[in-house]
Amino acid sequence: MSSDSEILVGRKPQMSYVLACITAFHKGIDEIIVKARGRSISKAVDVVQMVRRKFMPDVVIKDITIGTDEIKLEGTQEVKRVSSISIVLKRTRKR
Amino acid sequence: MSSDSEILVGRKPQMSYVLACITAFHKGIDEIIVKARGRSISKAVDVVQMVRRKFMPDVVIKDITIGTDEIKLEGTQEVKRVSSISIVLKRTRKR
Repeated sequence: MSSDSEILVGRKPQMSYVLACITAFHKGIDEIIVKARGRSISKAVDVVQMVRRKFMPDVVIKDITIGTDEIKLEGTQEVKRVSSISIVLKRTRKR
Repeated sequence: MSSDSEILVGRKPQMSYVLACITAFHKGIDEIIVKARGRSISKAVDVVQMVRRKFMPDVVIKDITIGTDEIKLEGTQEVKRVSSISIVLKRTRKR
């Protein structure tokens, strides 16, 4: 899976990620993964819903998984656990 | 589906909802739905992960769906759209 097809939702405005999804599909990628961690999980769901409802109704949610990522804090032995989500989007209609 | 088996995650501390899930399973309910809207979606994922990782490893995620709820603002004709998540948890092991 190339980095083009993986969209990591973070601190940028919601619309940046919506555009990233649309751009990826327009490049011809059929399946993308929208990922987020922690507080950004809500934004990832907003992004997916906006892509599907406002821009690309032919995009379906193929799979949703949640998990816990372990992040090693730099310079320490501490490990921080943070929830994550991965939403797989698939374009159904051929252009 | 009774209200016992539906847990709506909102503004209370995360642990309140974790306890609500554990209590429901201990009452003998085999399947519960954890729901949240908007900014609380991230907290719902945290709640589910904490229930499964820390307290009840025999609980599996049966289904995750996301959607958009339309909320009618009181006293106006305006409709606000907000993302939502529903996570179905199932207890696999019999007590």
